[in-house]
Amino acid sequence: MLEDQKPSKTSLESMGEFALIDHLTKSATTALPSTLCGIGDDAAVLKHESETVVSTDMLIEGVHFDLAYMPLKHLGYKAVVVNLSDIYAMNAQATQVLVSIAVSNRFTLEALEELYAGIHLACKTYGVDLVGGDTTSSKQGLQLSVTALGEVSKTGAVKRSGAAENELLVVSGDLGAAYMGLQVLARENEVFKANPNHKPDLDPYTYLVERQLKPEARKDIVSLLNALEVKPTSMIDISDGLSSEVLHLCQHSGLGCRIYEDKIPLDPQFIAVCEEFNIDSTTIALSGGEDYELLFTLKQDEYDKIKGNPNLTVIGHMSAKAEGTALVTRGNEVLPLKAQGWRAF
Amino acid sequence: MLEDQKPSKTSLESMGEFALIDHLTKSATTALPSTLCGIGDDAAVLKHESETVVSTDMLIEGVHFDLAYMPLKHLGYKAVVVNLSDIYAMNAQATQVLVSIAVSNRFTLEALEELYAGIHLACKTYGVDLVGGDTTSSKQGLQLSVTALGEVSKTGAVKRSGAAENELLVVSGDLGAAYMGLQVLARENEVFKANPNHKPDLDPYTYLVERQLKPEARKDIVSLLNALEVKPTSMIDISDGLSSEVLHLCQHSGLGCRIYEDKIPLDPQFIAVCEEFNIDSTTIALSGGEDYELLFTLKQDEYDKIKGNPNLTVIGHMSAKAEGTALVTRGNEVLPLKAQGWRAF
Repeated sequence: MLEDQKPSKTSLESMGEFALIDHLTKSATTALPSTLCGIGDDAAVLKHESETVVSTDMLIEGVHFDLAYMPLKHLGYKAVVVNLSDIYAMNAQATQVLVSIAVSNRFTLEALEELYAGIHLACKTYGVDLVGGDTTSSKQGLQLSVTALGEVSKTGAVKRSGAAENELLVVSGDLGAAYMGLQVLARENEVFKANPNHKPDLDPYTYLVERQLKPEARKDIVSLLNALEVKPTSMIDISDGLSSEVLHLCQHSGLGCRIYEDKIPLDPQFIAVCEEFNIDSTTIALSGGEDYELLFTLKQDEYDKIKGNPNLTVIGHMSAKAEGTALVTRGNEVLPLKAQGWRAF
Repeated sequence: MLEDQKPSKTSLESMGEFALIDHLTKSATTALPSTLCGIGDDAAVLKHESETVVSTDMLIEGVHFDLAYMPLKHLGYKAVVVNLSDIYAMNAQATQVLVSIAVSNRFTLEALEELYAGIHLACKTYGVDLVGGDTTSSKQGLQLSVTALGEVSKTGAVKRSGAAENELLVVSGDLGAAYMGLQVLARENEVFKANPNHKPDLDPYTYLVERQLKPEARKDIVSLLNALEVKPTSMIDISDGLSSEVLHLCQHSGLGCRIYEDKIPLDPQFIAVCEEFNIDSTTIALSGGEDYELLFTLKQDEYDKIKGNPNLTVIGHMSAKAEGTALVTRGNEVLPLKAQGWRAF
């Protein structure tokens, strides 16, 4: 009577490619008026009233994620969210995504259902339609490729190149938590490998782990800025690390900058864990990466509109190119700001 | 004096991710008025006057291509072209592509330059702008993901679902050659592995090998149909095999069909090589796949407009669903048409 309580797993070989795609995408109903035709033809058909923005990213098993501590549902969710972040960084509203996966035959149908549950959840949460993709086999591991599309807000697209001298540098949320979340997960995984009976206690690290496993993109910031009638002069997603992205804004806008260590927004849990790991919190906040926050510049006379907003922090200002890119430490030392962001190779 | 004649190879580790992207995409100048902002920001910005179509595909080393006989430049070219084919199949003009690559450290910078030379050549040939992508490392092998965008022609998007009873089934070009090209290349590779001094003579197979290694998408057919003021009622790209795609049109349009074996367009070189390999040419033409041709349906009274065009062949017609999907053989036998297209798993 107790046999078969463990549900049997379905191999991908037992389904054809078309049947598999149908199965995984059947709940992908389209909701937006801009989606004229979704999954099921050679291409999706869209009609955007304003300008269209489009961005794409790949996520490779063993490089961008480790299934030892990344549940598949979270992975599906994160794969969509990280692409939406690039759309919001253009001052646009995300509208459609296409998701391609390549999987080895070690994955079962049930595993892919988990992955797609996360993909569908992200689409629902952010109000975007899943309109296409590709499903194929890989020689080894899982590879995902997501393309996100959006429509530019009424105030127009915001590029990296529009900043001017003396404008304020503003960042959303807080920094470094996603990186330390990964360190916590990696440590627990090592303990688990040494002792499989070990029950990890992740309670003190909930916020950090969630920032790593279930990041959110700042759709709310784009809406907030639109509601406040604030148009950033330049904007960028800082998931590759704050310092490298500040430098990108400087480079594209032909400017220097000055940012202040004591202004960088840090969560108390992040500070506590940095102490526990004996790691410098500023280094991680500057270079950890995977914080799907937005960095933008603002004219000084717009400061009153954002003042006191708990989601936004002024961390410094833009300067003339000749003044260089400077980090002012808590001890009032002026150091050159260096990119130590994530390197793909 | 003769040392260093063999150019040294540059490892990817020696370049940062951003420097690598800059290097590979520096020749990606944008030409189309619909490209407002290309590579270099969080997302590309586009402005399409009519409806936008978008499609994406993954190409995985060891599954979709074998670098033993696929030169990297050809691979880059083909990766773009196969995606454009999906855009043309919607009665649209391709306008932009985004190309993502994941590569293991066995690839050098020079190898990626070859790959991108093919990508840039395809963009130039088809008049599309390279506007984005991602470059990252993989644990093993090379994976590509291409997203193509296009603008629907004045006559509107053509889906798979618009066919009606008695309409003509028309196919562009000829079928089966790409599959036999792959058989020829695989055979030569086996001979080469047994005897590395073997010089392959591919002259008798030029057309077939080119169909496999350097396929072209039928941009010309979309332009031709527009010029002839012919609007297909349904259309599909048949790179997964003629039979499976005829069945897709039938399924989406709620119809049956009747296609005639003796009408299927075959190249003489293809027929000769099928005989040499002792393979049934009709089976390959129906199910070989990788022919980036278009299949569409046409109202009978539009037949005169396409009659005699060497690029277009009427292979049968649509019928009521109850009549099923039939293949009429040269011997006048009526067989059920079966999908034996490429299966990803």
